[in-house]
Formats: sequence, structure tokens, C-alpha cells
Amino acid sequence: MKAGHTVSSTREIDALIDMMARLPGLGPRSARRAVLHMIRKRALLLTPLADLMQTVAATARECATCGNIGTTETCDICASEKRANGQICVVEDVADLWAMERGQAFKGRYHVLGGTLSALDQVGPETLRIPKLVERVLAENISEVILALNATVDGQTTAHYIADQLDGRVALTSLAQGVPIGGELDYLDDGTISAALSARKSL
Amino acid sequence: MKAGHTVSSTREIDALIDMMARLPGLGPRSARRAVLHMIRKRALLLTPLADLMQTVAATARECATCGNIGTTETCDICASEKRANGQICVVEDVADLWAMERGQAFKGRYHVLGGTLSALDQVGPETLRIPKLVERVLAENISEVILALNATVDGQTTAHYIADQLDGRVALTSLAQGVPIGGELDYLDDGTISAALSARKSL
Repeated sequence: MKAGHTVSSTREIDALIDMMARLPGLGPRSARRAVLHMIRKRALLLTPLADLMQTVAATARECATCGNIGTTETCDICASEKRANGQICVVEDVADLWAMERGQAFKGRYHVLGGTLSALDQVGPETLRIPKLVERVLAENISEVILALNATVDGQTTAHYIADQLDGRVALTSLAQGVPIGGELDYLDDGTISAALSARKSL
Repeated sequence: MKAGHTVSSTREIDALIDMMARLPGLGPRSARRAVLHMIRKRALLLTPLADLMQTVAATARECATCGNIGTTETCDICASEKRANGQICVVEDVADLWAMERGQAFKGRYHVLGGTLSALDQVGPETLRIPKLVERVLAENISEVILALNATVDGQTTAHYIADQLDGRVALTSLAQGVPIGGELDYLDDGTISAALSARKSL
């Protein structure tokens, strides 16, 4: 028997534990704990969770314009006239879009690429909704495209490619790099420290 | 806005994230990751998970005899004649029963207390299915009761109470204490080392 194999009395409970263990961040042990907890809180947790999953499975879809996940053809942000301020923030992933929204600092609209260019993984511009971004910049009244891609090699490669595609058509900016709020210098990597130093501001 | 507040485009997805974040071992961040992952793997993960939860919510119940969680009035272990070897292993929790079963070393039946005696939390013998244990020892053909309670103060208090209740009616044993298999002395607490020393065996 392999380590972590589940042994409960019934097929359905074992199957539920095995499937929960496939979620990111959960393993066999935490999946068992979660399932026991849900069974104990059946009315408060297990039944409502099953219903919500059913609803989300039936209704969740990508926004046809920006790629955000919602339950309508056009997501709330693309549908809101208030967000039409001429800015598009380009992110790799829906999770990044949600993170930007939690920051509550950006008032424009988004464009979710769905990943980064990667020769190794055979991800090209077509897969990434980059043509759709160019199309939006031409069709909508866009004044600025903010590249909020991850500060990884693939993220920066993708940023350069997008900059080439949009060159001269629109103002292009990217997020500032530097010391995070509350960050301690001793715990930062050398690259961040030298980026923060060369972009230093006068007080 | 509180830290970790979720911002997606729709009420249902937000509600699903909030509810997933209430599971033990998950927080707001890992709940968001899990929900995005499930939405991406809708047919493989989200829909089957919702169906399984529905089934388990409708069918899961405690075994009337031992307290194990299953889908029938009497769990598979209590129903199996092969497990009627005259031994009952007493555990605190269903998770402990599952852990014992994964060990595949015990061939008898179980009795799940559902916790430990605790004056602070007002948990008394009646809440813990201890009377039911005494009843089973008298009614079934039991030769040995193995106390597999956690080596905590509450666990050991409960073990002493059960020993009092069953005194003279049946052979009582408890799990051996000592160095765990693969354990390194340097990482063990002092109590474990002195318990292992005083229970030393001749080679």
C-alpha cells in the first residue's frame, strides 16, 4: 500500500478524499482532515460547498474581451463604463488580475494573457491572446497599456514582445521595481536591491 | 478592505472562495488558487467534486456501533465477521481510526470516542461514547481492549478513566511508547527519550 493511501469505510468518501488531494496546496493528509471537517459540518459547509461548485461549474466562463473569469460573456469590469479610462493593464493570469483588484489602485480595464511566451513549452503569441490585445488597442480608445507581468525571465520576454507589437501606437508603462512596502533589505535578493538603487528618488 | 478579501467578477465565485477558505489547511490565498484550478479543470475536477460532495452529504453517517464514518448504519469493519477477533481498539477520532487502518497491523474492531475527557471544555463520559464501550465489552465476546489514545494529558486522563470503568472485565493494553521508526534521537523530546529508555528491550 502506498504511503498516504486513504482507508475509510466507503468508496465515495475515499473518492472524495482522493479528489480533494489533487487540489493545489492540499495533500492526502490535509484532504482527509478537510473531508472529515466537512462531514461534521455538513449543513454549514459540505452541502453549500457542493451547491456552489455545481453553480460555478455550470456558469463560470472567460470574458470574451479581457479573459477574466466570471459568469457572463462580458465580465463586470469590461461591462462597467466607469472603468473605461483609456488604460489597459496586461497581466499573465486571472489570479494576477484579482491581486491587482485587491490593491484597489487601478481604475482601468485588464487584459489577461493566459501565460507567458515560452519557447520550451511551445507557447506562442497566438496562444496568449496577444493579437486580441493589439486589436483592443486599435478598436478601443486606449491611451496607455500598463504591463504588470511577473518579474521573471519569461514575463520580461513577453513584455518585450508586447512592447514591439504595440510600438508607437500607445503609451507603454510597466510596474515600478524596488523594495516592497515593509520589506527588509537583508531579506531581499541582490537584483531587487540594485534595481531599487538605480531607480532611486530624491526626497 | 480586509487583507485577503477576494475580488473576482462574480458573487458565486467569491462565495466559493470564501467557503473553501474555511476548510482546515486552506486560507484565502490557497482557496483562490484551488478555485481557479478547479474552474480550469472543470470537467475533470469541479463537476466530479461537486457530485461526490453531494453524494457524501446525503449518505455519510456514523456507524451506530463504533462511531466510524461510513454510508451504512453499520460500518464495513463492524459488519465484517473477519474482524470479530475479540479485540477492540479505542481511538479518539475517526482520523485516528483511518490512521490505524493505514498501518494494516490491527485485525480487530474499533471504538471511536469522539474526543477526550476535558473538564475545561465540559466533555464528560456520556458525550464520549464511553458507556457504549462498556456495553459493547459486556455484550460482544471481547477479550482485549487496546487503548490507542493520543499521548497528551487529556488522552491519558481518558485512558485512566476507561481503565477504571473496564477494570477486571477484560484485558487492557495501550500502544507502546518509544522512538518512532526512522526517528532521530536529537529531534525527540525528553519525555519520549526517557519513556523509550525505561521500556528498553534486551536484544
